[in-house]
Formats: sequence, structure tokens, C-alpha cells
Amino acid sequence: MRDISGKPALYSINTATLGYQAPLEAIIDDCAQRGIGGIAPWRRELDGRNVQDIARRLKNCHMSVSGLCRSTYYTAPTLAERRQAVDENRRALDTAAELSANCYMQVVGGLPGGSKNLAEAHRQVKEGIAQLLPHSRDVGVPIALEPLHPMTAADRSCLCSLRQALDWCDELDPDGGFRLGVAVDVYHLWWDPYLAEQLKRAGNRILAFHVSDWLVPTTDLVSDRGMPGDGVIDIRAIRAQVEAAGFKGLVELEIFSANNWWKQNQSLILDVSVERISEHC
Amino acid sequence: MRDISGKPALYSINTATLGYQAPLEAIIDDCAQRGIGGIAPWRRELDGRNVQDIARRLKNCHMSVSGLCRSTYYTAPTLAERRQAVDENRRALDTAAELSANCYMQVVGGLPGGSKNLAEAHRQVKEGIAQLLPHSRDVGVPIALEPLHPMTAADRSCLCSLRQALDWCDELDPDGGFRLGVAVDVYHLWWDPYLAEQLKRAGNRILAFHVSDWLVPTTDLVSDRGMPGDGVIDIRAIRAQVEAAGFKGLVELEIFSANNWWKQNQSLILDVSVERISEHC
Repeated sequence: MRDISGKPALYSINTATLGYQAPLEAIIDDCAQRGIGGIAPWRRELDGRNVQDIARRLKNCHMSVSGLCRSTYYTAPTLAERRQAVDENRRALDTAAELSANCYMQVVGGLPGGSKNLAEAHRQVKEGIAQLLPHSRDVGVPIALEPLHPMTAADRSCLCSLRQALDWCDELDPDGGFRLGVAVDVYHLWWDPYLAEQLKRAGNRILAFHVSDWLVPTTDLVSDRGMPGDGVIDIRAIRAQVEAAGFKGLVELEIFSANNWWKQNQSLILDVSVERISEHC
Repeated sequence: MRDISGKPALYSINTATLGYQAPLEAIIDDCAQRGIGGIAPWRRELDGRNVQDIARRLKNCHMSVSGLCRSTYYTAPTLAERRQAVDENRRALDTAAELSANCYMQVVGGLPGGSKNLAEAHRQVKEGIAQLLPHSRDVGVPIALEPLHPMTAADRSCLCSLRQALDWCDELDPDGGFRLGVAVDVYHLWWDPYLAEQLKRAGNRILAFHVSDWLVPTTDLVSDRGMPGDGVIDIRAIRAQVEAAGFKGLVELEIFSANNWWKQNQSLILDVSVERISEHC
């Protein structure tokens, strides 16, 4: 297991953590100033921007992109909507390639509007991912399936466990030729008693590692995540397993916190982020 | 699969659904008036009461107890607290026996206060259950392990999936001599893509079947459950699997709804309950 304490070059900041206050340039500069090794930006921050300028700025700061967030949902009531989602995700892969992103992060979608058919949701997601895989290989950016917490199954992600994500990898990319992989987010997966066995199974399928903490009590199903150390997740123990499986990438902090951290200013959030990753991850 | 439509004798009302407004006698009478086949009372409603009187009243109304709710948490920082929990649960088994309850419902507890050690929580629960099994057999009331939704893992239940519950059954009661089993609650388990395979595996370990619905959006992690039909769970499809596995017991409605149903009066809640089980379960 790596010693990451005091080594911000091994950290990445998911820009959602900062509450979308500042443009990407200011985020990159603030992160670079602290020696942070990477960011994970969101597509909304890149829309209409000169992506090559952003890529150049990152390169000049010796920073990488641990992942581009995130996919348009694959589940939808009509075929036309699902085709559009795949098209948007194909274009996002191009953007990810321009940024030399380490992976393209997938939040796959919940039940197609109005439906109770979970199996159909699974089918739609796998169909969409399968359609994207050749383009992912062509542009050199692997797709990372991110299992989200089961409490998001209805409206955000019918993909809810690492076992499920790895089963889908085996099904859609049996020989690994497409480099289809997974994102391991401690917030979504910490509760799973079979996490350790699935992390062993995952091996080099692990493309990203996200940290934050589960607060007690949690007051919102989406935007009440805690900074590492403020909750109950044994983050370091999970990182040990992730690295034992072969992961060597950045430790990415991703926090949604409408009522706490998003109300702080960016400098403070970044200072605390670096300190908390160093001490608790 | 049974046709339960319009057959309230096959329904049970978990008294939590009614918001703890009336004493058990009034609940039993109101349920009996509607031809409801059973209730699942809570220990708090029986404390200091003459349980045999309650049992007699139920018998006179031709009603049964689909389960007694629920265990004192098994997880705690000190051995003394854990011993006390087992003692309390032993006494609760006696109460369950007086009521001829179909099972004693287990909500097992989350992380022991202040700890991040999920494996230790699992160990503590299994240790406590193992200590109770002989008494469960002696009084003739089987213990039902209820996996709760993963969003409760920190503070209510480190037991989060049917697979985990069945693994624990196999470990603690390999030959079924203690009749250790599980409670299948659609609210807690609907998201699990492996639910169907685990229900097949469960067979006659299924001791209880609970219904309610997952609302979108869900605004509280505990007390924002919906009436069947108001959410996204395909309850009937799950019941088909539960009954294919061999379950023949009552369909129990259990809703926690601080901001909606608990504000209604008992008669209305019961009328809607019967209608919704009939139409949507």
C-alpha cells in the first residue's frame, strides 16, 4: 500500500467537491498551487469551452484528469432518447480524449421514466455501453462503470454493486480488449460485505478510486456526503484492498455537500481536502 | 402464485404503519372488522401489558401474528451491552411465543458506536444470534434475519442483502434445525440484481414477506416509505418469486411515513392499506 500522506501529487479533486463556484481555469490554478496531481472535471464545465486550452493548462501544471464526469443516462423510455444518449456519450469520449482523461465515468441511469422494470433498465444500459466500446477503444479512453449506492437505484443508477459492475465487464468485454473497467467509490460501496472479494476479483479493471465519507445521520440521498474523517467509512482499509488489486492511480475526492462544504469558499475546501486525504485516506 | 386480491385474510398490518396512535386492542379490533388476517406488533406496544389477553383477543378474531418487531441491536461497544441485548432478545422470544408469533424479527444493528469496523459488527451480530438460537428452538419461535437497505448500514443494520442473510443462516444453522430464516422486505431489497437468484436459494428459509413502496424522490432515509402503488417497486413480481420459493404466509404491510400516512387517522390508513395490498401486491 502506498504512503500517500503529505503527497498531494497523488490526489485528485473532483470539481463537484467545490460546488461549481469557479471556472475550470481557477480550479486548476488553485489545485496546482497546492501540488495536487489531478482533477476530475464535469462536462458542464467544458461545454462551449476550448478544451485544448484546458488540456494545455493542465499539462503546464503537471496535472492529469483522473476521470471525466459523467455519462448521459442510458435508460430512457424511447429508443430515440437512448440513441441520443449514446451519441452524447460518444462526443463526451472525444472530449475525454482531448483531455487525456484516465477514464470516462459512467453513471448509468435508473428506471426508465415511469417503469418498474429493473431488468429492462439493466438491458438498456448494457446495450448502450456495448455501442460505445469500439469508440472508447479508438480514442483510447476506457469506460469506467461506477456502481452507485442502492439508494440511487430508482432515479440515478440501476448499477448498484461492484459484483454487478464486474459481471457487466465480463459480459461486455470478456477479454479486456476494450479496457472496460470500474470506478470504486467508497461512499457507494463501503457497506457491502462482499466488497473485499470483489476488489480481489477486479484486478486491473479498477480505473478510478473515489473517496468521501458517510455521515451519521445522513439527511439527503444525494448531497450530504462528508469529508474523509467526518463519517464512518474505513477509507484506508478499502484503499489497501484497491491497491492490492493493482490500482496505482490518483485518490480522487468527490463530495456533494449542499448544506456544508458547498457553502465554503474554494480555497478553504481545497485546504481541507488535501489535509483530509492525507490524514484519513 | 396465490390470488390475494380482495382476500384480506391473507394480509397482515405491521402496527408501525399506523403511526402508534392507538393501543393494540383498538388496532386488533379495527383490523378484525376489515377481515385482516394478522398483525405484526412492536415490543413497545406490549411492554407492561397482559400479553395473554392480547393473544386471546387475536385468537377470538381469528388473527395471527406474522412477526414480533423487533430485536434489540446486537452491536455495541462493550461486552456487557451485548450481553444485555441478548438477554432482552431472549425475553422478547418468550413474548413472541405467548403470541404464537410466526417469527421474531431481527434488525441487527449497525456499527458499534464510534467504530468503523464493519467486520466486527458482523461478528457481533452472528455471536448474538448464535446465543439465541437454542432458546428460539425451545420456545418454538424462529428467528427471522431481516436484511435492511444498505443506506441503514451505519446506524441500523450491517446486514444489507439477502445473500448475506442466507450466508449467515447457512453458517449459524446449516441443517435448519433451529429454523433460522429471513424476512424479505421489498423496500430493502428491490434494487438488488441478484434478488431473484437469492430468493430461489432461500426456499423455506423465508419466514416473512413485507411490502411497501420506494418513492421518487425519497426525502428521508427511514420514514419516507410509500403505500404500494405510489412508488417504483414491482411488488407483485417479487411476491411471485417469494411464493415460488415456497412462502405461504401473510403479506405484511410495513410503512414508516412521518410526513404522510402517520398524519392520517387509523381507519383511513387501514382502508387504504387493504385496497393497496389487494391492487398492487
